[in-house]
Amino acid sequence: MKALEERIRLEGKVLPGNIVKVDGFLNHRVDVRLMREMAKEFGRLFDLEGLTAVLTIEASGIALAAICADEFGVPMVFAKKAKSDNIEGGLYQSRIFSYTYKKEVTLIMSRQWLGPNDKVLIVDDFLANGEALRGLVDIVTQAGAELIGIGVAVEKGFQPGGKRLREEGIDLKSLAIIDKADESGFVFRKQEEDYE
Amino acid sequence: MKALEERIRLEGKVLPGNIVKVDGFLNHRVDVRLMREMAKEFGRLFDLEGLTAVLTIEASGIALAAICADEFGVPMVFAKKAKSDNIEGGLYQSRIFSYTYKKEVTLIMSRQWLGPNDKVLIVDDFLANGEALRGLVDIVTQAGAELIGIGVAVEKGFQPGGKRLREEGIDLKSLAIIDKADESGFVFRKQEEDYE
Repeated sequence: MKALEERIRLEGKVLPGNIVKVDGFLNHRVDVRLMREMAKEFGRLFDLEGLTAVLTIEASGIALAAICADEFGVPMVFAKKAKSDNIEGGLYQSRIFSYTYKKEVTLIMSRQWLGPNDKVLIVDDFLANGEALRGLVDIVTQAGAELIGIGVAVEKGFQPGGKRLREEGIDLKSLAIIDKADESGFVFRKQEEDYE
Repeated sequence: MKALEERIRLEGKVLPGNIVKVDGFLNHRVDVRLMREMAKEFGRLFDLEGLTAVLTIEASGIALAAICADEFGVPMVFAKKAKSDNIEGGLYQSRIFSYTYKKEVTLIMSRQWLGPNDKVLIVDDFLANGEALRGLVDIVTQAGAELIGIGVAVEKGFQPGGKRLREEGIDLKSLAIIDKADESGFVFRKQEEDYE
């Protein structure tokens, strides 16, 4: 998505350790107008016929998922990170490794809000190692729900998450894939949509 | 706001310890249509002339704040909970007591995204002890920004947060104030807007 790539070029920063910082419009301050454009783009990229919910994980995915749910006219559901090892009943659970917290965390979601009659689109702001998304896919599977696909705003293409998810046959679409990020700037992966 | 009170009566649950559970439409599964109505109601209750940002705190406030920011045509900024005691520079910080985590946590926000030229509305989904909101007000003060007021979806009126914030002269508006919640149901505080 050209508008997003442009914005990353203009305002994104690369910190030591290949950390890509886009917190001026994506995950600290949030440009909701840009998110509306991203939601519309997901609407073009996915067949959302029969969609019942947009699914994400706390915290930074929530803003984009809320705007997507608003755009598509369905509820948004977000998985939570368990705050302790004492997890109550009635929950789907998935154990993932959090690179942010540098430890294993358990994603939880109430069984009440996702079941076999659901057809969901997973949405997240960022994809690097893909652990959070792997956990969400696991929860969708546990729920017996149908997964339409995964829509991501920014993918770090030089980290393995995207490749792994696509190899599993998941319809993953990232609006900007950064293949290289260093002091000379950003290199984005060419995508089919760019040629339309 | 009648529609919100009605929804709490229909779907809200009271758990032991006066815990009010509204996770079917507010803070786990999110009804974005209801949030749009709440955003419009905040637009009626506050004078938003000159508004530059909607401010909230991760995680569950983000959905409502994003819809509000979309409704008012401004960016949304959310404070984060520090993940460690090693906090980098360039941040506003406020120390609060988290009743969820049962310990002190530090709210952080990049100085880049809030300053003396900002005029902000703070938005959150829930108000009980008011620690998170106190921290956000503190950050707005540190930034030298102007605070229009605080818009909350659900206030637990039998806990002290709301009273404290109002006594400090802050224009706090809660769309539903629960004065009593037990096995017999919910009692809501009458508010001026109910008589309009």
